[in-house]
Amino acid sequence: MKKAVILLSGGLDSTTCLAIAKEQGFIPCALSFDYGQRNNYELESAKKLVSVYQVKDHKVIQIDLRTFGSSALTDNIDVPKDTELESNKIPITYVPARNTIFLSFALAWAETLNAYDIFIGVNALDYSGYPDCRPEYIKSFQDMANLATKTGVENEQQLIIHTPLIHLTKAEIIQKGIALGIDYSLTHSCYDPSATGQPCGHCDSCQLRLNGFLEADYKDPLKYQD
Amino acid sequence: MKKAVILLSGGLDSTTCLAIAKEQGFIPCALSFDYGQRNNYELESAKKLVSVYQVKDHKVIQIDLRTFGSSALTDNIDVPKDTELESNKIPITYVPARNTIFLSFALAWAETLNAYDIFIGVNALDYSGYPDCRPEYIKSFQDMANLATKTGVENEQQLIIHTPLIHLTKAEIIQKGIALGIDYSLTHSCYDPSATGQPCGHCDSCQLRLNGFLEADYKDPLKYQD
Repeated sequence: MKKAVILLSGGLDSTTCLAIAKEQGFIPCALSFDYGQRNNYELESAKKLVSVYQVKDHKVIQIDLRTFGSSALTDNIDVPKDTELESNKIPITYVPARNTIFLSFALAWAETLNAYDIFIGVNALDYSGYPDCRPEYIKSFQDMANLATKTGVENEQQLIIHTPLIHLTKAEIIQKGIALGIDYSLTHSCYDPSATGQPCGHCDSCQLRLNGFLEADYKDPLKYQD
Repeated sequence: MKKAVILLSGGLDSTTCLAIAKEQGFIPCALSFDYGQRNNYELESAKKLVSVYQVKDHKVIQIDLRTFGSSALTDNIDVPKDTELESNKIPITYVPARNTIFLSFALAWAETLNAYDIFIGVNALDYSGYPDCRPEYIKSFQDMANLATKTGVENEQQLIIHTPLIHLTKAEIIQKGIALGIDYSLTHSCYDPSATGQPCGHCDSCQLRLNGFLEADYKDPLKYQD
């Protein structure tokens, strides 16, 4: 069995990604980030998930993306509610270069583990319009990664960035996850939860999640604020 | 005048890079890392340099690359001394994916600054055989960066990774820096300095530096241990 590094935020997508990596026979090594996000419920979910799904190797990297600012996920900027999701504009919840930073750490860990597989739960259909969720971006990161490390110099094995959700709708992701036995009550998606961690039901992330459950014909096990 | 993000370690190369960016008319925004390196003299040099060269914007990012281990620069592994530099083998001082992580943070900062220029002092001639110092790696990172950010989606301006030293010998770098008025006594290059910060004179980095000064026909202003 080969090891794979799984980027695990604790949200619906990355949790499904973890289950898919396990289904494909990889030993998952989960990587999460405490990056100065305004709420820590997602990270708490990630910790619960690795415990429930018996992931032996879990690292939480401390980085402070508030240093650069300019996102509603890290700064004191209002999270937009009930917005039109089909707009082509990049929303204020976008965190500059976040996936590039996360994948760079995953690359560093993969290299020290002698692992050649990284999983990231990006999705190009029901997503929030972030540039670093697009297939052409992921392909380009993979090309770069294969030049960045010892792998690219000393041997022929290629590193692969796996994106098993990239062409799925949110409903299909949920159906896949339920088929793999995921307990979605353990996951957290909301950008702007209450002080006790209850999801708002109105931010982009909640809207995508709720629409996904509706379309998949399952009930979201989370309790929403209203 | 346009802003540019300059990766500034406090070593000879990145300091020369800073001077070149200023010469080219950029407003330098210097980015340094406290990444769990075994000695902090380089970072102290970076702080002195931004003060002496009046760089107004300097950020020091705290990340802990010891989390992943496997480098003599972060772990309790002996730094090799008096080694043959022409070998094609990647040395133990290589830190997995370090430049990829550094450039990813530079990309995040550039995006929030609305800057489209990043300077990194990598060098493909007199270097230590690191995969992430090669021109093909840098080109590939630039391609990826242009897909990773708002820039790649919302407008046509391309981000450029500047590598003004990439095809220079260490002697040429030193000559260029002296012509630009750099005081190299403020820089630090040694991988394994004494407790008081004196360079060893025998690690790969000291050897490259000393050979560079010899070839450039200047005296290195640093005091070595022997």
